[in-house]
Amino acid sequence: MPLDHGSIGVESPPHERSWTAKDTMLYALGVGAGVRETVFSTEKDQRVLPTFAVLAAQAPGGRRIGDFDPAMLVHAEQGFELHRELPPAGRVRTTSKVTGIYDKGSGALVTSESLAVDPGTGEPVITSRSAVFIRGEGGFGGDRGPRDDWSVPERAPDHKVTYPTTPDQALIYRLSGDYNPLHSDPEFAARAGFDRPILHGLCTYGVTGRALLHAVAGSDPARFGAMSGRFTSPVFPGESLTVSIWVDGPAVLFRTAKDDGTVVIDRGRAAISARPAP
Amino acid sequence: MPLDHGSIGVESPPHERSWTAKDTMLYALGVGAGVRETVFSTEKDQRVLPTFAVLAAQAPGGRRIGDFDPAMLVHAEQGFELHRELPPAGRVRTTSKVTGIYDKGSGALVTSESLAVDPGTGEPVITSRSAVFIRGEGGFGGDRGPRDDWSVPERAPDHKVTYPTTPDQALIYRLSGDYNPLHSDPEFAARAGFDRPILHGLCTYGVTGRALLHAVAGSDPARFGAMSGRFTSPVFPGESLTVSIWVDGPAVLFRTAKDDGTVVIDRGRAAISARPAP
Repeated sequence: MPLDHGSIGVESPPHERSWTAKDTMLYALGVGAGVRETVFSTEKDQRVLPTFAVLAAQAPGGRRIGDFDPAMLVHAEQGFELHRELPPAGRVRTTSKVTGIYDKGSGALVTSESLAVDPGTGEPVITSRSAVFIRGEGGFGGDRGPRDDWSVPERAPDHKVTYPTTPDQALIYRLSGDYNPLHSDPEFAARAGFDRPILHGLCTYGVTGRALLHAVAGSDPARFGAMSGRFTSPVFPGESLTVSIWVDGPAVLFRTAKDDGTVVIDRGRAAISARPAP
Repeated sequence: MPLDHGSIGVESPPHERSWTAKDTMLYALGVGAGVRETVFSTEKDQRVLPTFAVLAAQAPGGRRIGDFDPAMLVHAEQGFELHRELPPAGRVRTTSKVTGIYDKGSGALVTSESLAVDPGTGEPVITSRSAVFIRGEGGFGGDRGPRDDWSVPERAPDHKVTYPTTPDQALIYRLSGDYNPLHSDPEFAARAGFDRPILHGLCTYGVTGRALLHAVAGSDPARFGAMSGRFTSPVFPGESLTVSIWVDGPAVLFRTAKDDGTVVIDRGRAAISARPAP
Protein backbone atom coordinates (compact mmCIF):
# COMPACT_ATOMS: atom_id res chain seq x y z
CA MET A 1 0.00 0.00 0.00
CA PRO A 2 1.51 3.35 -0.93
CA LEU A 3 2.38 5.90 1.70
CA ASP A 4 -0.32 8.38 2.56
CA HIS A 5 0.48 11.69 0.92
CA GLY A 6 -2.43 13.17 2.81
CA SER A 7 -0.24 13.10 5.92
CA ILE A 8 1.96 15.89 4.52
CA GLY A 9 1.68 19.12 6.44
CA VAL A 10 -0.65 17.79 9.12
CA GLU A 11 0.62 19.05 12.44
CA SER A 12 0.91 16.61 15.35
CA PRO A 13 -0.65 17.39 18.72
CA PRO A 14 1.84 19.27 20.92
CA HIS A 15 4.10 17.06 23.02
CA GLU A 16 5.83 18.31 26.18
CA ARG A 17 9.20 16.98 27.10
CA SER A 18 11.38 17.91 30.02
CA TRP A 19 14.96 16.98 30.80
CA THR A 20 17.14 17.14 33.87
CA ALA A 21 20.80 17.98 34.45
CA LYS A 22 21.39 14.24 34.82
CA ASP A 23 19.83 13.60 31.40
CA THR A 24 22.14 16.10 29.71
CA MET A 25 25.21 14.76 31.57
CA LEU A 26 24.30 11.21 30.55
CA TYR A 27 23.85 12.35 26.95
CA ALA A 28 27.28 14.04 27.04
CA LEU A 29 28.90 10.80 28.25
CA GLY A 30 26.93 8.88 25.64
CA VAL A 31 28.52 10.89 22.84
CA GLY A 32 31.98 10.68 24.39
CA ALA A 33 32.34 13.96 26.30
CA GLY A 34 34.31 12.78 29.32
CA VAL A 35 37.00 14.06 31.65
CA ARG A 36 38.30 16.64 29.19
CA GLU A 37 34.81 18.09 28.74
CA THR A 38 33.43 18.17 32.27
CA VAL A 39 31.51 21.37 31.48
CA PHE A 40 29.17 19.04 29.57
CA SER A 41 29.53 15.82 31.57
CA THR A 42 29.26 17.17 35.13
CA GLU A 43 26.98 19.70 36.83
CA LYS A 44 29.77 22.20 37.57
CA ASP A 45 28.97 25.31 35.48
CA GLN A 46 27.16 22.84 33.25
CA ARG A 47 26.35 23.60 29.63
CA VAL A 48 24.62 21.44 27.07
CA LEU A 49 26.01 19.94 23.88
CA PRO A 50 24.12 21.51 20.96
CA THR A 51 23.25 18.13 19.43
CA PHE A 52 21.10 17.31 22.48
CA ALA A 53 18.60 19.53 20.63
CA VAL A 54 17.68 16.59 18.40
CA LEU A 55 16.61 14.51 21.42
CA ALA A 56 14.91 17.43 23.16
CA ALA A 57 12.76 18.10 20.08
CA GLN A 58 11.72 14.49 19.54
CA ALA A 59 7.98 14.00 19.65
CA PRO A 60 5.84 10.94 19.06
CA GLY A 61 4.77 10.87 15.41
CA GLY A 62 1.62 12.62 14.34
CA ARG A 63 -0.42 11.12 11.54
CA ARG A 64 0.59 7.66 10.32
CA ILE A 65 2.21 7.76 6.92
CA GLY A 66 1.45 4.17 6.00
CA ASP A 67 1.64 0.46 6.80
CA PHE A 68 5.25 -0.36 6.02
CA ASP A 69 7.64 -2.80 7.71
CA PRO A 70 9.57 -0.79 10.31
CA ALA A 71 12.64 -2.91 9.51
CA MET A 72 12.69 -1.23 6.09
CA LEU A 73 13.14 2.22 7.64
CA VAL A 74 16.53 3.85 8.17
CA HIS A 75 17.37 7.25 9.59
CA ALA A 76 18.74 9.06 6.52
CA GLU A 77 19.24 12.71 7.42
CA GLN A 78 19.20 14.84 10.54
CA GLY A 79 19.41 18.56 11.00
CA PHE A 80 18.56 21.09 13.66
CA GLU A 81 18.62 24.81 14.31
CA LEU A 82 19.11 26.10 17.81
CA HIS A 83 17.27 29.37 18.37
CA ARG A 84 18.89 29.73 21.78
CA GLU A 85 21.34 27.80 23.95
CA LEU A 86 19.75 24.88 25.79
CA PRO A 87 19.69 24.91 29.60
CA PRO A 88 21.06 21.88 31.56
CA ALA A 89 17.51 21.18 32.71
CA GLY A 90 14.55 22.39 30.73
CA ARG A 91 11.27 21.77 29.02
CA VAL A 92 9.94 22.27 25.51
CA ARG A 93 6.63 21.79 23.76
CA THR A 94 7.03 20.24 20.34
CA THR A 95 4.81 19.88 17.28
CA SER A 96 5.91 17.97 14.21
CA LYS A 97 4.72 17.34 10.72
CA VAL A 98 5.66 15.40 7.61
CA THR A 99 7.00 17.88 5.06
CA GLY A 100 7.51 15.65 2.06
CA ILE A 101 7.29 12.11 0.66
CA TYR A 102 9.72 11.72 -2.21
CA ASP A 103 10.12 8.95 -4.72
CA LYS A 104 13.71 7.71 -4.82
CA GLY A 105 12.91 4.66 -6.94
CA SER A 106 14.11 1.92 -4.57
CA GLY A 107 12.30 3.57 -1.72
CA ALA A 108 10.61 6.66 -0.37
CA LEU A 109 12.31 9.50 1.45
CA VAL A 110 9.99 10.95 4.08
CA THR A 111 11.00 14.30 5.51
CA SER A 112 9.68 15.75 8.76
CA GLU A 113 10.09 18.92 10.73
CA SER A 114 9.58 19.58 14.43
CA LEU A 115 9.36 22.90 16.19
CA ALA A 116 10.09 22.93 19.92
CA VAL A 117 9.02 26.04 21.79
CA ASP A 118 9.36 27.31 25.34
CA PRO A 119 6.08 26.16 26.93
CA GLY A 120 5.95 29.33 29.01
CA THR A 121 6.47 31.95 26.31
CA GLY A 122 5.85 30.09 23.07
CA GLU A 123 9.22 31.31 21.76
CA PRO A 124 11.02 28.92 19.42
CA VAL A 125 13.89 26.93 20.95
CA ILE A 126 14.69 24.22 18.39
CA THR A 127 13.75 23.46 14.81
CA SER A 128 14.61 19.87 13.96
CA ARG A 129 14.47 18.35 10.49
CA SER A 130 14.91 14.70 9.71
CA ALA A 131 14.44 12.29 6.87
CA VAL A 132 13.87 8.56 6.89
CA PHE A 133 14.34 6.29 3.93
CA ILE A 134 11.80 3.50 3.57
CA ARG A 135 13.00 0.73 1.27
CA GLY A 136 10.43 -0.71 -1.09
CA GLU A 137 8.07 2.26 -0.87
CA GLY A 138 9.34 4.09 -3.97
CA GLY A 139 8.28 3.82 -7.58
CA PHE A 140 4.96 5.59 -7.10
CA GLY A 141 5.74 8.11 -9.83
CA GLY A 142 6.33 10.99 -7.45
CA ASP A 143 8.74 13.87 -7.25
CA ARG A 144 12.35 12.92 -6.43
CA GLY A 145 12.63 15.87 -4.06
CA PRO A 146 14.90 18.89 -3.98
CA ARG A 147 18.50 18.53 -5.11
CA ASP A 148 21.28 19.42 -2.70
CA ASP A 149 24.28 21.18 -4.25
CA TRP A 150 26.66 20.08 -1.47
CA SER A 151 30.09 19.08 -2.75
CA VAL A 152 33.47 18.52 -1.14
CA PRO A 153 35.48 21.75 -1.37
CA GLU A 154 38.51 21.56 -3.64
CA ARG A 155 40.92 22.33 -0.83
CA ALA A 156 42.21 20.35 2.11
CA PRO A 157 39.98 20.57 5.20
CA ASP A 158 40.59 23.58 7.42
CA HIS A 159 40.28 21.30 10.44
CA LYS A 160 40.48 17.56 10.95
CA VAL A 161 39.44 16.23 14.33
CA THR A 162 39.60 12.57 15.33
CA TYR A 163 37.69 11.28 18.35
CA PRO A 164 37.59 7.69 19.57
CA THR A 165 34.44 5.86 20.50
CA THR A 166 34.61 3.05 23.04
CA PRO A 167 33.30 -0.52 22.80
CA ASP A 168 30.66 0.44 25.40
CA GLN A 169 29.66 3.68 23.65
CA ALA A 170 26.30 2.45 22.35
CA LEU A 171 25.40 0.97 25.75
CA ILE A 172 25.91 4.35 27.41
CA TYR A 173 24.30 6.32 24.58
CA ARG A 174 21.16 4.19 24.55
CA LEU A 175 20.31 5.17 28.13
CA SER A 176 19.41 8.56 26.63
CA GLY A 177 16.32 6.85 25.30
CA ASP A 178 16.88 4.87 22.08
CA TYR A 179 16.70 1.25 23.23
CA ASN A 180 16.64 -0.29 19.75
CA PRO A 181 18.37 -3.68 20.24
CA LEU A 182 20.24 -3.15 16.96
CA HIS A 183 22.67 -1.20 19.15
CA SER A 184 23.01 -3.65 22.02
CA ASP A 185 21.94 -7.19 21.18
CA PRO A 186 24.38 -9.25 19.08
CA GLU A 187 21.65 -11.70 18.00
CA PHE A 188 19.33 -8.95 16.87
CA ALA A 189 22.18 -7.21 15.07
CA ALA A 190 23.06 -10.49 13.32
CA ARG A 191 19.48 -10.85 12.06
CA ALA A 192 19.80 -7.33 10.66
CA GLY A 193 22.94 -8.41 8.82
CA PHE A 194 25.63 -6.95 11.09
CA ASP A 195 28.55 -8.79 12.69
CA ARG A 196 27.82 -7.00 15.93
CA PRO A 197 25.64 -4.19 17.27
CA ILE A 198 26.16 -0.86 15.54
CA LEU A 199 26.42 2.59 17.04
CA HIS A 200 23.35 4.83 16.98
CA GLY A 201 23.47 7.25 14.05
CA LEU A 202 22.64 10.01 16.49
CA CYS A 203 25.63 9.00 18.63
CA THR A 204 27.92 9.41 15.62
CA TYR A 205 26.09 12.69 15.03
CA GLY A 206 26.76 13.81 18.62
CA VAL A 207 30.47 12.92 18.39
CA THR A 208 30.60 14.92 15.15
CA GLY A 209 28.85 17.83 16.87
CA ARG A 210 31.53 17.84 19.59
CA ALA A 211 34.23 18.04 16.92
CA LEU A 212 32.50 21.00 15.28
CA LEU A 213 31.88 22.70 18.61
CA HIS A 214 35.51 22.52 19.72
CA ALA A 215 37.14 23.09 16.31
CA VAL A 216 35.12 26.01 14.99
CA ALA A 217 32.80 27.33 17.74
CA GLY A 218 35.41 27.94 20.44
CA SER A 219 33.72 25.23 22.56
CA ASP A 220 30.85 27.69 23.07
CA PRO A 221 27.35 26.21 22.53
CA ALA A 222 25.95 29.74 22.24
CA ARG A 223 27.79 30.11 18.92
CA PHE A 224 26.39 26.87 17.53
CA GLY A 225 23.41 27.77 15.35
CA ALA A 226 22.68 24.75 13.19
CA MET A 227 23.95 21.41 11.94
CA SER A 228 22.77 18.88 9.38
CA GLY A 229 24.07 15.81 7.62
CA ARG A 230 23.23 12.58 5.86
CA PHE A 231 23.92 9.15 7.39
CA THR A 232 25.75 7.05 4.82
CA SER A 233 27.32 4.06 6.58
CA PRO A 234 27.13 2.30 9.94
CA VAL A 235 29.76 2.71 12.68
CA PHE A 236 30.73 0.02 15.17
CA PRO A 237 31.31 1.01 18.79
CA GLY A 238 35.05 1.34 19.32
CA GLU A 239 35.77 2.80 15.89
CA SER A 240 37.33 6.25 15.67
CA LEU A 241 35.62 9.08 13.83
CA THR A 242 37.44 11.78 11.90
CA VAL A 243 35.53 14.95 11.12
CA SER A 244 36.86 17.01 8.19
CA ILE A 245 35.73 20.62 8.39
CA TRP A 246 35.76 23.46 5.85
CA VAL A 247 34.96 26.96 7.06
CA ASP A 248 33.71 29.90 4.98
CA GLY A 249 32.77 32.52 7.51
CA PRO A 250 29.65 31.39 9.39
CA ALA A 251 29.00 28.62 6.84
CA VAL A 252 30.70 25.36 7.67
CA LEU A 253 30.80 22.16 5.63
CA PHE A 254 31.83 18.85 7.14
CA ARG A 255 32.09 15.16 6.58
CA THR A 256 32.68 12.36 9.12
CA ALA A 257 34.65 9.23 8.22
CA LYS A 258 36.02 6.09 9.84
CA ASP A 259 39.71 5.17 9.91
CA ASP A 260 39.35 3.20 6.67
CA GLY A 261 38.01 6.32 4.94
CA THR A 262 34.37 5.21 4.79
CA VAL A 263 32.21 8.30 5.02
CA VAL A 264 29.55 7.86 7.73
CA ILE A 265 28.02 11.35 7.76
CA ASP A 266 28.09 13.13 4.41
CA ARG A 267 26.91 16.48 3.08
CA GLY A 268 27.37 18.08 6.48
CA ARG A 269 26.58 21.73 7.06
CA ALA A 270 26.78 23.79 10.21
CA ALA A 271 26.12 27.42 11.04
CA ILE A 272 28.50 28.92 13.57
CA SER A 273 28.37 32.55 14.61
CA ALA A 274 31.54 34.53 15.20
CA ARG A 275 30.33 35.66 18.61
CA PRO A 276 27.34 34.54 20.62
CA ALA A 277 24.39 36.87 20.61
CA PRO A 278 24.61 39.15 23.67
CA MET B 1 32.80 18.02 70.85
CA PRO B 2 32.90 14.23 71.17
CA LEU B 3 30.65 12.06 69.08
CA ASP B 4 27.31 11.21 70.59
CA HIS B 5 27.41 7.65 71.90
CA GLY B 6 23.71 7.97 72.60
CA SER B 7 23.12 7.59 68.88
CA ILE B 8 24.18 3.95 69.00
CA GLY B 9 21.33 1.56 68.33
CA VAL B 10 18.75 4.23 67.58
CA GLU B 11 16.86 3.12 64.50
CA SER B 12 16.24 5.66 61.72
CA PRO B 13 12.76 6.26 60.35
CA PRO B 14 12.08 3.88 57.45
CA HIS B 15 13.12 5.19 54.05
CA GLU B 16 11.62 3.86 50.81
CA ARG B 17 13.73 3.72 47.72
CA SER B 18 12.81 2.44 44.29
CA TRP B 19 14.95 1.80 41.27
CA THR B 20 14.28 1.24 37.60
CA ALA B 21 15.83 -1.03 34.96
CA LYS B 22 17.61 2.06 33.64
CA ASP B 23 19.11 2.70 37.10
CA THR B 24 20.55 -0.81 37.32
CA MET B 25 21.86 -0.67 33.73
CA LEU B 26 23.52 2.68 34.45
CA TYR B 27 25.03 1.23 37.62
CA ALA B 28 26.40 -1.74 35.66
CA LEU B 29 28.06 0.59 33.14
CA GLY B 30 29.35 2.71 36.02
CA VAL B 31 31.24 -0.26 37.45
CA GLY B 32 32.51 -1.34 34.03
CA ALA B 33 30.07 -4.05 32.95
CA GLY B 34 29.88 -3.36 29.23
CA VAL B 35 29.50 -5.25 25.98
CA ARG B 36 30.74 -8.54 27.45
CA GLU B 37 28.21 -8.36 30.26
CA THR B 38 25.05 -7.19 28.54
CA VAL B 39 22.93 -9.29 30.90
CA PHE B 40 23.73 -6.53 33.42
CA SER B 41 24.09 -3.51 31.14
CA THR B 42 21.04 -3.97 28.90
CA GLU B 43 17.40 -4.86 29.53
CA LYS B 44 17.58 -8.16 27.61
CA ASP B 45 17.03 -10.91 30.21
CA GLN B 46 18.41 -8.34 32.61
CA ARG B 47 19.90 -9.28 35.98
CA VAL B 48 21.42 -7.07 38.63
CA LEU B 49 25.00 -6.91 39.84
CA PRO B 50 25.00 -7.98 43.51
CA THR B 51 26.93 -4.89 44.62
CA PHE B 52 23.99 -2.68 43.59
CA ALA B 53 22.64 -3.85 46.96
CA VAL B 54 24.79 -1.24 48.70
CA LEU B 55 23.11 1.60 46.78
CA ALA B 56 19.63 0.10 47.08
CA ALA B 57 19.98 -0.09 50.86
CA GLN B 58 21.26 3.46 51.31
CA ALA B 59 19.06 5.56 53.54
CA PRO B 60 19.46 9.10 54.82
CA GLY B 61 21.13 8.98 58.24
CA GLY B 62 19.03 8.72 61.34
CA ARG B 63 20.23 10.42 64.47
CA ARG B 64 23.21 12.77 64.08
CA ILE B 65 26.36 11.38 65.63
CA GLY B 66 28.05 14.74 66.15
CA ASP B 67 29.29 18.03 64.76
CA PHE B 68 32.43 17.01 62.92
CA ASP B 69 33.92 18.38 59.71
CA PRO B 70 32.58 16.19 56.86
CA ALA B 71 35.95 16.58 55.12
CA MET B 72 37.44 14.48 57.95
CA LEU B 73 35.22 11.52 57.11
CA VAL B 74 36.30 8.67 54.84
CA HIS B 75 34.41 5.55 53.84
CA ALA B 76 36.42 2.83 55.57
CA GLU B 77 34.56 -0.45 55.20
CA GLN B 78 31.60 -1.77 53.27
CA GLY B 79 29.77 -5.05 53.44
CA PHE B 80 26.41 -6.44 52.44
CA GLU B 81 24.36 -9.60 52.57
CA LEU B 82 21.86 -10.34 49.87
CA HIS B 83 18.90 -12.29 51.22
CA ARG B 84 17.55 -12.72 47.70
CA GLU B 85 18.54 -11.75 44.19
CA LEU B 86 17.66 -8.16 43.31
CA PRO B 87 15.18 -7.50 40.51
CA PRO B 88 16.08 -5.09 37.64
CA ALA B 89 13.44 -2.70 38.91
CA GLY B 90 12.35 -2.79 42.52
CA ARG B 91 11.65 -1.08 45.78
CA VAL B 92 12.87 -1.54 49.35
CA ARG B 93 12.14 0.03 52.69
CA THR B 94 15.27 0.62 54.73
CA THR B 95 16.01 1.38 58.35
CA SER B 96 19.50 2.06 59.59
CA LYS B 97 21.31 2.52 62.87
CA VAL B 98 24.75 3.25 64.23
CA THR B 99 26.11 0.04 65.71
CA GLY B 100 29.35 1.25 67.26
CA ILE B 101 31.66 4.22 67.82
CA TYR B 102 35.20 2.96 68.33
CA ASP B 103 38.30 4.80 69.47
CA LYS B 104 41.16 4.29 67.03
CA GLY B 105 43.37 6.99 68.58
CA SER B 106 43.79 9.25 65.57
CA GLY B 107 40.09 9.10 64.86
CA ALA B 108 36.82 7.37 65.49
CA LEU B 109 35.45 4.41 63.55
CA VAL B 110 31.69 4.62 63.32
CA THR B 111 29.91 1.48 62.18
CA SER B 112 26.36 1.36 60.85
CA GLU B 113 23.94 -1.26 59.69
CA SER B 114 20.96 -0.97 57.38
CA LEU B 115 18.21 -3.47 56.78
CA ALA B 116 16.27 -3.17 53.55
CA VAL B 117 13.02 -5.10 53.37
CA ASP B 118 10.38 -5.75 50.73
CA PRO B 119 7.81 -3.01 51.45
CA GLY B 120 5.00 -5.37 50.51
CA THR B 121 5.89 -8.36 52.67
CA GLY B 122 8.42 -7.02 55.15
CA GLU B 123 10.82 -9.82 54.18
CA PRO B 124 14.51 -8.93 54.36
CA VAL B 125 16.21 -8.21 51.04
CA ILE B 126 19.56 -6.62 51.96
CA THR B 127 21.60 -6.16 55.09
CA SER B 128 24.27 -3.54 54.53
CA ARG B 129 27.09 -2.75 56.96
CA SER B 130 29.49 0.12 56.61
CA ALA B 131 32.10 1.94 58.63
CA VAL B 132 33.36 5.49 58.31
CA PHE B 133 36.58 6.75 59.82
CA ILE B 134 36.43 10.29 61.23
CA ARG B 135 39.87 11.78 61.70
CA GLY B 136 40.42 13.79 64.86
CA GLU B 137 37.48 12.26 66.71
CA GLY B 138 39.44 9.56 68.53
CA GLY B 139 41.23 9.65 71.88
CA PHE B 140 38.07 9.64 73.96
CA GLY B 141 39.20 6.61 75.93
CA GLY B 142 36.76 4.22 74.26
CA ASP B 143 36.86 0.64 73.08
CA ARG B 144 39.03 0.01 70.00
CA GLY B 145 36.38 -2.29 68.56
CA PRO B 146 36.40 -5.94 67.56
CA ARG B 147 39.53 -7.42 66.02
CA ASP B 148 39.33 -9.02 62.62
CA ASP B 149 41.43 -12.17 62.15
CA TRP B 150 41.64 -11.77 58.37
CA SER B 151 45.04 -12.63 56.94
CA VAL B 152 46.36 -13.34 53.47
CA PRO B 153 46.34 -17.11 52.90
CA GLU B 154 49.79 -18.67 52.62
CA ARG B 155 49.15 -19.94 49.12
CA ALA B 156 48.92 -18.25 45.76
CA PRO B 157 45.46 -16.91 44.93
CA ASP B 158 43.09 -19.46 43.40
CA HIS B 159 41.95 -16.77 40.94
CA LYS B 160 43.41 -13.51 39.80
CA VAL B 161 41.18 -11.27 37.72
CA THR B 162 42.26 -7.95 36.22
CA TYR B 163 39.70 -5.43 34.99
CA PRO B 164 40.43 -2.03 33.50
CA THR B 165 38.69 1.13 34.52
CA THR B 166 38.40 3.98 32.02
CA PRO B 167 39.32 7.65 32.41
CA ASP B 168 35.58 8.45 32.34
CA GLN B 169 34.65 5.72 34.86
CA ALA B 170 33.92 8.06 37.77
CA LEU B 171 31.82 10.36 35.54
CA ILE B 172 29.59 7.46 34.57
CA TYR B 173 29.51 5.95 38.06
CA ARG B 174 28.51 9.22 39.73
CA LEU B 175 25.25 9.33 37.76
CA SER B 176 24.16 6.48 40.05
CA GLY B 177 23.83 9.14 42.74
CA ASP B 178 27.11 10.06 44.43
CA TYR B 179 27.87 13.54 43.04
CA ASN B 180 30.75 14.30 45.44
CA PRO B 181 33.03 16.60 43.36
CA LEU B 182 36.06 14.74 44.70
CA HIS B 183 35.31 12.32 41.85
CA SER B 184 34.77 14.84 39.05
CA ASP B 185 36.21 18.28 39.76
CA PRO B 186 40.00 18.63 39.41
CA GLU B 187 40.07 21.81 41.53
CA PHE B 188 38.12 20.23 44.34
CA ALA B 189 40.31 17.12 44.16
CA ALA B 190 43.43 19.30 44.34
CA ARG B 191 42.16 20.99 47.50
CA ALA B 192 41.69 17.51 48.98
CA GLY B 193 45.31 16.72 48.13
CA PHE B 194 44.87 14.64 44.97
CA ASP B 195 46.50 15.26 41.59
CA ARG B 196 43.18 14.58 39.94
CA PRO B 197 39.71 13.31 40.82
CA ILE B 198 39.67 9.85 42.36
CA LEU B 199 37.35 6.94 41.67
CA HIS B 200 34.47 6.35 44.08
CA GLY B 201 35.35 3.65 46.61
CA LEU B 202 32.03 2.00 45.78
CA CYS B 203 32.97 1.95 42.11
CA THR B 204 36.17 0.04 42.95
CA TYR B 205 33.94 -2.13 45.13
CA GLY B 206 31.58 -2.78 42.22
CA VAL B 207 34.42 -3.69 39.86
CA THR B 208 35.70 -6.06 42.54
CA GLY B 209 32.22 -7.55 42.89
CA ARG B 210 32.15 -8.28 39.14
CA ALA B 211 35.46 -10.09 39.44
CA LEU B 212 34.12 -12.24 42.28
CA LEU B 213 30.83 -12.86 40.48
CA HIS B 214 32.49 -14.11 37.32
CA ALA B 215 35.43 -15.94 38.90
CA VAL B 216 33.72 -17.84 41.69
CA ALA B 217 29.93 -17.50 41.36
CA GLY B 218 29.57 -18.70 37.77
CA SER B 219 28.32 -15.20 36.81
CA ASP B 220 25.13 -16.01 38.70
CA PRO B 221 23.94 -13.26 41.08
CA ALA B 222 21.68 -15.79 42.81
CA ARG B 223 24.81 -17.51 44.17
CA PHE B 224 26.27 -14.30 45.55
CA GLY B 225 25.39 -14.15 49.23
CA ALA B 226 27.67 -11.54 50.78
CA MET B 227 30.75 -9.39 50.33
CA SER B 228 32.76 -7.10 52.56
CA GLY B 229 36.07 -5.29 52.50
CA ARG B 230 38.09 -2.37 53.79
CA PHE B 231 39.06 0.59 51.61
CA THR B 232 42.79 1.19 51.99
CA SER B 233 43.96 3.43 49.16
CA PRO B 234 42.47 5.65 46.46
CA VAL B 235 42.17 4.61 42.81
CA PHE B 236 42.36 7.00 39.86
CA PRO B 237 39.96 6.49 36.95
CA GLY B 238 41.81 4.64 34.22
CA GLU B 239 43.83 2.42 36.56
CA SER B 240 43.43 -1.34 36.34
CA LEU B 241 42.27 -3.38 39.28
CA THR B 242 43.46 -6.90 40.03
CA VAL B 243 41.36 -8.98 42.38
CA SER B 244 43.16 -11.89 44.08
CA ILE B 245 40.73 -14.54 45.27
CA TRP B 246 41.13 -17.48 47.63
CA VAL B 247 38.30 -20.00 47.86
CA ASP B 248 37.52 -22.40 50.72
CA GLY B 249 34.14 -23.83 49.86
CA PRO B 250 31.51 -21.14 50.30
CA ALA B 251 33.96 -18.85 52.14
CA VAL B 252 35.95 -16.61 49.88
CA LEU B 253 38.74 -14.20 50.76
CA PHE B 254 39.89 -11.48 48.40
CA ARG B 255 42.03 -8.43 48.02
CA THR B 256 42.01 -5.79 45.26
CA ALA B 257 45.20 -4.08 44.12
CA LYS B 258 46.41 -1.64 41.50
CA ASP B 259 49.09 -2.44 38.92
CA ASP B 260 51.82 -1.10 41.22
CA GLY B 261 50.71 -3.55 43.91
CA THR B 262 49.01 -1.00 46.16
CA VAL B 263 46.15 -2.73 47.91
CA VAL B 264 42.94 -0.71 47.52
CA ILE B 265 40.42 -3.08 49.09
CA ASP B 266 41.82 -5.26 51.84
CA ARG B 267 40.45 -7.93 54.17
CA GLY B 268 37.86 -8.94 51.63
CA ARG B 269 35.38 -11.69 52.32
CA ALA B 270 32.57 -13.04 50.22
CA ALA B 271 30.01 -15.80 50.64
CA ILE B 272 29.22 -17.73 47.50
CA SER B 273 26.84 -20.67 47.43
CA ALA B 274 27.52 -23.72 45.32
CA ARG B 275 24.08 -23.57 43.73
CA PRO B 276 21.40 -20.90 43.97
CA ALA B 277 18.49 -21.63 46.24
CA PRO B 278 15.70 -23.18 44.15
